[in-house]
Amino acid sequence: MEVTESIKQSVTREFKEETGLVLQDPQLRGAFTVIIEEQGKVVDEWMMFTFYCEEFSGQLLEHSEEGKLEWVPMNAYSDLPMAPGDYHIFDHILESNQLIYGTFTYTEDFTLISIDLDPPRP
Amino acid sequence: MEVTESIKQSVTREFKEETGLVLQDPQLRGAFTVIIEEQGKVVDEWMMFTFYCEEFSGQLLEHSEEGKLEWVPMNAYSDLPMAPGDYHIFDHILESNQLIYGTFTYTEDFTLISIDLDPPRP
Repeated sequence: MEVTESIKQSVTREFKEETGLVLQDPQLRGAFTVIIEEQGKVVDEWMMFTFYCEEFSGQLLEHSEEGKLEWVPMNAYSDLPMAPGDYHIFDHILESNQLIYGTFTYTEDFTLISIDLDPPRP
Repeated sequence: MEVTESIKQSVTREFKEETGLVLQDPQLRGAFTVIIEEQGKVVDEWMMFTFYCEEFSGQLLEHSEEGKLEWVPMNAYSDLPMAPGDYHIFDHILESNQLIYGTFTYTEDFTLISIDLDPPRP
């Protein structure tokens, strides 16, 4: 986030920079605390916000600083590489429009140590 | 917030500590960036989350570390002392269940410099 942005302005700006697409009314659907632990000590922490959006304008870039970009079918996310906790975010957000809250604890190399989600995993 | 908490766990714990009441399913309704500026320079910043909740258990404390506590009628908030931008949060949340996003910029003594809200003020 840039310093004076709201989280909605931030996701809109960053999505545009990284994909070329302009989101129309992204909706906050997840608010998470991410903890990095090594040997039982917290070495880093941040917040992560997940937005849902169905409408946009613009054309998808083929490449950005984030890498190669492509559309994938909704049900293909479980085969994509991502931090292990992120699959649970997709599981929830594609099934429910209820906000999900939670904490993910990882090692520094993103091995998942624990997940605490509300609503909990089915 | 304590380090491993989600924002929902944090509001539930802090509300209990400061009022004696246990919130039942508080819902996030506002996500804000707060900026403190002096002479055009950002000297502090934080995020502020506003929750809405109708159900609770427990008895209201008369006093807590936050001061004297009392119930007030819903329409009395405009007469209560608070940071100037907070009145706009009440205005929105008591009228709409749609999440509101925004940025408040204050001086160090909480004179309001600017407000940027989405949805905007009526």
